[in-house]
Amino acid sequence: MEENLIRKGLSIFEKSKNTIIASIDKDGFPNLKAMLKPRENEELKVFYFSTNTSSQRVKQFSENSKSSIYFFDSLSFRGIMLTGIMEVLFDQTIKDRIWRDGDTMYYSEGVTDPDYCVLKFTTKKCRMYEEFKSYDFMV
Amino acid sequence: MEENLIRKGLSIFEKSKNTIIASIDKDGFPNLKAMLKPRENEELKVFYFSTNTSSQRVKQFSENSKSSIYFFDSLSFRGIMLTGIMEVLFDQTIKDRIWRDGDTMYYSEGVTDPDYCVLKFTTKKCRMYEEFKSYDFMV
Repeated sequence: MEENLIRKGLSIFEKSKNTIIASIDKDGFPNLKAMLKPRENEELKVFYFSTNTSSQRVKQFSENSKSSIYFFDSLSFRGIMLTGIMEVLFDQTIKDRIWRDGDTMYYSEGVTDPDYCVLKFTTKKCRMYEEFKSYDFMV
Repeated sequence: MEENLIRKGLSIFEKSKNTIIASIDKDGFPNLKAMLKPRENEELKVFYFSTNTSSQRVKQFSENSKSSIYFFDSLSFRGIMLTGIMEVLFDQTIKDRIWRDGDTMYYSEGVTDPDYCVLKFTTKKCRMYEEFKSYDFMV
């Protein structure tokens, strides 16, 4: 059963055109942002995103690492929400690994741009929604 | 300026095919759910959604009303996030007003179904994202 849910969850993630990440602001309100799909992932366990160091969400994750990420397909009413911890990484090795051609569009100084950093999300819990039903599982 | 941002924000809301609502779970993690577009709204100030009383988010909003709602267009990289308070309403007058033909698909007992309730979101702050820039404003 659990294995079947992980397989289905992975399929939703792979087909999804929408990635949303959530943080908590200093007043305790949830904040949301549409993002590019993660640059790397280890199944449903770990996800890496590139982002701007100067962004509001980097500030929020530095103060409160509780997060969730959400992949969904609005046409088929299927989605998967992963709840977990978001770390902000500045290590050059991971910045090099996540970098893609064309990223100077977002980070004009290139792969060592101080405004370029990496978000690493580690999953604690999963919740999948399909055919009007929700399923909780672990990875 | 403020008026211009409100007008643009309304345009993003109207064109958006995606509505996400966020709540906070009992462990303090943000939770996300794709929803049908709101049934009613007063510009960017107040939004009404229909939902299932038995849903996880109704339980969460009853315990913590801090919320945000997010409308976005992933193709044009435009989005608007509204931060505010979500109330859960069971009053029959508002349930009657928000009800639409075909809702028995979600609430089999009809407009008096105890599993049918209304979410009312009242905006505190707005944040719009357009052309890689964010703009904060009030409504």
